[in-house]
Amino acid sequence: LTQAEMVRIEQDILGKNDAYAAANRKHLAAHGVFALNLVSSPGSGKTTLLVETIRRLAGSMPLAVIEGDQQTEFDAERIRATGAPALQINTGKGCHLDAHMVGRALRELPLPERGLLLIENVGNLVCPAAFDLGEAHKVVILSVTEGEDKPLKYPDMFAAADLMLLSKVDLLPHLTFDAARAIDYARRVNPKLQVIQCSATSGEGFDAWLGWIAAGVAQAQNP
Amino acid sequence: LTQAEMVRIEQDILGKNDAYAAANRKHLAAHGVFALNLVSSPGSGKTTLLVETIRRLAGSMPLAVIEGDQQTEFDAERIRATGAPALQINTGKGCHLDAHMVGRALRELPLPERGLLLIENVGNLVCPAAFDLGEAHKVVILSVTEGEDKPLKYPDMFAAADLMLLSKVDLLPHLTFDAARAIDYARRVNPKLQVIQCSATSGEGFDAWLGWIAAGVAQAQNP
Ligand SMILES: Nc1nc2c(ncn2[C@@H]2O[C@H](COP(=O)(O)OP(=O)(O)OP(=O)(O)O)[C@@H](O)[C@H]2O)c(=O)[nH]1
Ligand SMILES: Nc1nc2c(ncn2[C@@H]2O[C@H](COP(=O)(O)OP(=O)(O)OP(=O)(O)O)[C@@H](O)[C@H]2O)c(=O)[nH]1
Ligand SMILES: [Mg+2]
Ligand SMILES: [Mg+2]
Ligand SMILES: [Zn+2]
Ligand SMILES: [Zn+2]
Repeated sequence: LTQAEMVRIEQDILGKNDAYAAANRKHLAAHGVFALNLVSSPGSGKTTLLVETIRRLAGSMPLAVIEGDQQTEFDAERIRATGAPALQINTGKGCHLDAHMVGRALRELPLPERGLLLIENVGNLVCPAAFDLGEAHKVVILSVTEGEDKPLKYPDMFAAADLMLLSKVDLLPHLTFDAARAIDYARRVNPKLQVIQCSATSGEGFDAWLGWIAAGVAQAQNP
Repeated sequence: LTQAEMVRIEQDILGKNDAYAAANRKHLAAHGVFALNLVSSPGSGKTTLLVETIRRLAGSMPLAVIEGDQQTEFDAERIRATGAPALQINTGKGCHLDAHMVGRALRELPLPERGLLLIENVGNLVCPAAFDLGEAHKVVILSVTEGEDKPLKYPDMFAAADLMLLSKVDLLPHLTFDAARAIDYARRVNPKLQVIQCSATSGEGFDAWLGWIAAGVAQAQNP
């Protein structure tokens, strides 16, 4: 394989993915669904955040969850324990969800008409950045235990996201993490990035996060 | 691209990588170098661990560091501040180091004859598992803030490693993390996995870690 062949193969993979993503987006728009693609390092708190989000939404809108992981059904089970429908995708050796997988999942799940679709990607701050799933927004979760420098060191993900949730802020008293610096770094990569500081443990930031979701759902219902 | 073509391309990439890895391994063995490939999620504490390790080794053996990151020279600069030589590899869109990159780095770095080579991979709990760099061991770092379930959800990396460092144990009093459960999960994936619980902040576990390194260096010197 030469360098040129590699580039052609990557373009082929991403081109096919973009076609599937466009189909997903059209399908979701036709049903007024607001779809989010949650991306982060492993263990930044995506599932814990989703469980707390669903608990607070308390059935106020239709919703469904797609879970991506290399192995296990653990995350889908945590979601189902809230009463919400969840479909688990196991990627095996794969390091990200792609739009074809999500399209198939959309045919199996009850579609949340005029509601919310939450897609939790495989925990990986690199590869999922390149794959459009047909979502309205990528939401990147950065936990305060990971260090302030992550946006500059893994910039593609922070460039691809529209919202950053700075998670686990309840742990700040026990860390040297400088939240203002992390946000400054993230905005150097993506000046338009919105930021909400939150904690699933203390509940901090959930009003802002739920408000942001409500605005997106309203827009998807009345485009 | 068909499924069969994809499989062939992946085999081609991994086959070429394995050939470069074998060359690196031979070169390192000829010079009695003990080489470690540190892998983990972003922000699990790899660089902090390396800095503290180098500080404690205090020049007692030749050593050199190869740093892998998508962007920035930050980690190499942190290593150089200790006085140790470090070479930064920026992978750009890439999500892992490969053996060809490491082979080139070995020609630029002063080789730590009869000493220690520390390779810090890109923070990614998925993709680096498949790429042999010519190291003696992969060392996986799991921080206690990531949750106990990571070994079962991202099993390839824990299967590929010989040692797991359970890092940031100084934070345990502030978390619900169950260390025994995380270790049990990791050993379900890899029954032979050795485990050291450590903290770069408190110094816990560093005697065991430095002892493990010293044994490996001694063996590389007298194979
Ligand atoms: N202190 C604190 N811990 C949290 C918070 N949110 C999640 N955690 C903990 O962080 C760890 C990982 O949480 P998960 O929700 O499994 O993270 P994730 O991003 O879904 O992980 P993967 O899907 O495996 O990549 C668990 O031990 C959680 O209890 C938070 O707001 N504060
Ligand atoms: N409490 C505590 N924090 C730690 C420890 N080790 C590292 N950290 C913190 O964890 C964050 C990430 O540390 P790094 O050493 O940059 O982690 P890394 O794995 O090298 O990160 P990348 O190379 O970017 O993937 C920083 O804020 C460190 O201060 C530890 O033992 N205890
Ligand atoms: Mg999860
Ligand atoms: Mg590092
Ligand atoms: Zn990938
Ligand atoms: Zn990858």
